[in-house]
Amino acid sequence: MSLSGAYDPANIFAKILRGEAPCAKVFEDDVALAFMDVFPQTAGHTLVIPKVACRTILDFPPDAFGAYMARVQRVAQAVEKAFAPDGVMLIQLNGAPAGQTVFHFHFHILPRREGEAMKGHGKAGMADMAALNAQAAQIAAAL
Amino acid sequence: MSLSGAYDPANIFAKILRGEAPCAKVFEDDVALAFMDVFPQTAGHTLVIPKVACRTILDFPPDAFGAYMARVQRVAQAVEKAFAPDGVMLIQLNGAPAGQTVFHFHFHILPRREGEAMKGHGKAGMADMAALNAQAAQIAAAL
Repeated sequence: MSLSGAYDPANIFAKILRGEAPCAKVFEDDVALAFMDVFPQTAGHTLVIPKVACRTILDFPPDAFGAYMARVQRVAQAVEKAFAPDGVMLIQLNGAPAGQTVFHFHFHILPRREGEAMKGHGKAGMADMAALNAQAAQIAAAL
Repeated sequence: MSLSGAYDPANIFAKILRGEAPCAKVFEDDVALAFMDVFPQTAGHTLVIPKVACRTILDFPPDAFGAYMARVQRVAQAVEKAFAPDGVMLIQLNGAPAGQTVFHFHFHILPRREGEAMKGHGKAGMADMAALNAQAAQIAAAL
């Protein structure tokens, strides 16, 4: 998979958007869906995906940034409020060599804590779904 | 320095915005300024900063995301066109424990190449200004 190419509607995030795959949901409206990463690189690792079908930030419709990024900010603020981390890291990966594993444009929101290392992307173990659902509820309550 | 606090108008990006400090400029308009990172984590490491004075994404005015992110996208597209990397990574750091070193909200755009490691943030050596100016001109030509 590279930077260019057609959008694959069978990608896992597209399935989640269609309700064909489960997620630990934080937030959803007509613009975006936020849910917990099942391979968290830090505790509280959250994803925010737009409902527009595109692979990377390079092919996202420019007119849609305002609405989408306001959701990314709201979720980042709620993550900060829910977990009170020392810092918050946003990562957005385009192309497999940059670390992208799902080819639906998305932002990672990672709470960071002093002295806590971040696990490698795709190298973290799969989290327990009940624990993720509890974290999602904490963030949702802070929205 | 933490996630909260007052904006310090003496930060280096504020000085660059006021023309009091130099930069290898890629792009500037009334919304944003793009320039090369002087401590590049990969070759072509570019920064895009908004002209709004705020510390992190958490305190950025939501109404301003549309215009700012359209600039981030345009510069990312130009970086991709100029250097033809295998991938493009965007990083946005909030709070010192997340790796933020300059407390003016900004996005990092990092070209990624197969098999090329990324240097640690703040751990890369200072780049040669002439080389950065040449890269900035390459990106500007691709805008």
